[in-house]
Amino acid sequence: MEKKRTPISEYGEFGLIRHLTGDIRLTQGSSVVGVGDDAAVLSYENEQVLVTSDLLLEGIHFDLTYTPLKHLGYKAAVVNFSDIYAMNGQPRQLIVSLGISKRFCVEDLDDLYTGLRLACENYGVDLVGGDTSASLTGLTLSLTCIGAGEKGRIVLRSGARENDLICVSGDLGAAYMGLQLLEREKHVFQSSNEPQPDFTGKEYLLERQLKPEARKDIIEKLAENDILPNAMIDISDGLSSELLHLCTNSGYGCRIYEDKLPIDYQTAILAEEMNFSLTTAALNGGEDYELLFTVPLSQHEKVSSLPGIKLIGHICAKNLGCRLISRDGQEIDLKAQGWRSL
Amino acid sequence: MEKKRTPISEYGEFGLIRHLTGDIRLTQGSSVVGVGDDAAVLSYENEQVLVTSDLLLEGIHFDLTYTPLKHLGYKAAVVNFSDIYAMNGQPRQLIVSLGISKRFCVEDLDDLYTGLRLACENYGVDLVGGDTSASLTGLTLSLTCIGAGEKGRIVLRSGARENDLICVSGDLGAAYMGLQLLEREKHVFQSSNEPQPDFTGKEYLLERQLKPEARKDIIEKLAENDILPNAMIDISDGLSSELLHLCTNSGYGCRIYEDKLPIDYQTAILAEEMNFSLTTAALNGGEDYELLFTVPLSQHEKVSSLPGIKLIGHICAKNLGCRLISRDGQEIDLKAQGWRSL
Repeated sequence: MEKKRTPISEYGEFGLIRHLTGDIRLTQGSSVVGVGDDAAVLSYENEQVLVTSDLLLEGIHFDLTYTPLKHLGYKAAVVNFSDIYAMNGQPRQLIVSLGISKRFCVEDLDDLYTGLRLACENYGVDLVGGDTSASLTGLTLSLTCIGAGEKGRIVLRSGARENDLICVSGDLGAAYMGLQLLEREKHVFQSSNEPQPDFTGKEYLLERQLKPEARKDIIEKLAENDILPNAMIDISDGLSSELLHLCTNSGYGCRIYEDKLPIDYQTAILAEEMNFSLTTAALNGGEDYELLFTVPLSQHEKVSSLPGIKLIGHICAKNLGCRLISRDGQEIDLKAQGWRSL
Repeated sequence: MEKKRTPISEYGEFGLIRHLTGDIRLTQGSSVVGVGDDAAVLSYENEQVLVTSDLLLEGIHFDLTYTPLKHLGYKAAVVNFSDIYAMNGQPRQLIVSLGISKRFCVEDLDDLYTGLRLACENYGVDLVGGDTSASLTGLTLSLTCIGAGEKGRIVLRSGARENDLICVSGDLGAAYMGLQLLEREKHVFQSSNEPQPDFTGKEYLLERQLKPEARKDIIEKLAENDILPNAMIDISDGLSSELLHLCTNSGYGCRIYEDKLPIDYQTAILAEEMNFSLTTAALNGGEDYELLFTVPLSQHEKVSSLPGIKLIGHICAKNLGCRLISRDGQEIDLKAQGWRSL
């Protein structure tokens, strides 16, 4: 059956906002006023407020050829939650603004909101505000996440100290290889009449790219074990970039070891198959949304016993630089990524 | 002398952020950590936090043919501050994310930031975070403003009560007529080799369109005179739309009087000259960023003695509808605007 496509013009701006957000309930004690006024009202006592914002543009940050809108909504929300966890905080509220071209119908936005709302539900976050606007050019998403952190337990990028252990959660490079896979299949798909590609055995890579999760569990695990990192950042632009941020902000250098980088089996298989450097995928791939943090050497035993966390190196003096020790013992300078002007 | 145009690629993402925000100092006691971590850290005690967000897209919300980037930055910031004042709060922090196509150079962004920073300076707001990203299609701005409001003194749209007086600050329709003027001159300019148009005698209209101010002064004046509105909203989409929001949210109707609408002399002159309905400009023009609020009838004397505030009507029962009483005594239903899907 053809999916219904209701033109957005049938609703108008205010009708559309009501349609998308009308039945949203507030669940967080700190949410006083949500969608529908000039601003959201939040109440925080004895906690510090964390705010992070993200702008997602079609063609730059996502490709709707292979990103279902529901997944896009989920991912956009989770990526913002990840920034709050990376401060050792808890995300509490989300504000979503959309720019929508006439290519999109009401049902498309319903899908997007289904993803946004599922993410909010899974992470215990309230959707408290937003805006919709016409757009000349595709879909634009702007998300702002507000969170709370306990005073004295907020973890910045700048707190790393000499000899700290460098830790990373989960594994690296899978989201990047998932993207390579989707890009490859997109080309194949566009140049033939083949049916939908078969992704059997590569589900993990697709999930990491299309429906990543933020590491709330790691933050909880660290708290349970009374481990407070000295510095922390989430890995959105690749381990290499994020580690350089952390070291630069802290005023130190680092050494990490190629053979310690956590890499999933499926990532390794596909890198081999596509003739990609596995280490480059792990260092520069990006979109892993894992947590990168440092703890004092004294915490070695505690942190190394935690499942899902891997020690990959240590912080050293600034003049020693930021380097990867390769499997054959070579020292290679880490390089920042970031976007380049098109 | 030709203005220098440094390609953004010379800086890269992180260099560009450093260049734009490197020397920004925090002045608000509540700003703990600003630009440069995963999230901004804010500290609020015994106050409620207000958050508002705005997405501005080139070609929809602004036209760079006649909007200097410095003005765009100033206006984008002020529009967000206005939303916080409309809750009877004080803006404290601003987060700015940019999507930038290759048409723009570093000096363009410097201009934009000059405007953003000037607005922050004028209103006592800290720029605490943001993001820059490549864009395929022009300039996209996403702003989030965080403010504070005293508990029990935050004013929502939903608090209007029967017989409340409806008040509006400043005057209406000038920003809209300013836009009409710029659009007219743009057409003339594009179809001839005339030198820059002469805007003498119309400066106020241009200023209202290109460099609006938020009514911090009105909020202060109300506080000084111990007037707490029952309901308040800022006029961004036109008096008519905003009054309908306020009435719908409060569950009441209203009557406003055509002959009470505050209109500046220059607005009236140009409307006449361009054969525009002056009342339509005042009701539906938008971008006035004036405050629309209601106070109990008992405050009549106090509020009517304040300069810069005009009483335009009153709140009535819901079943009486929301209407304008025209000069000749006719009752006309108010209509919402909002954007329409393109």
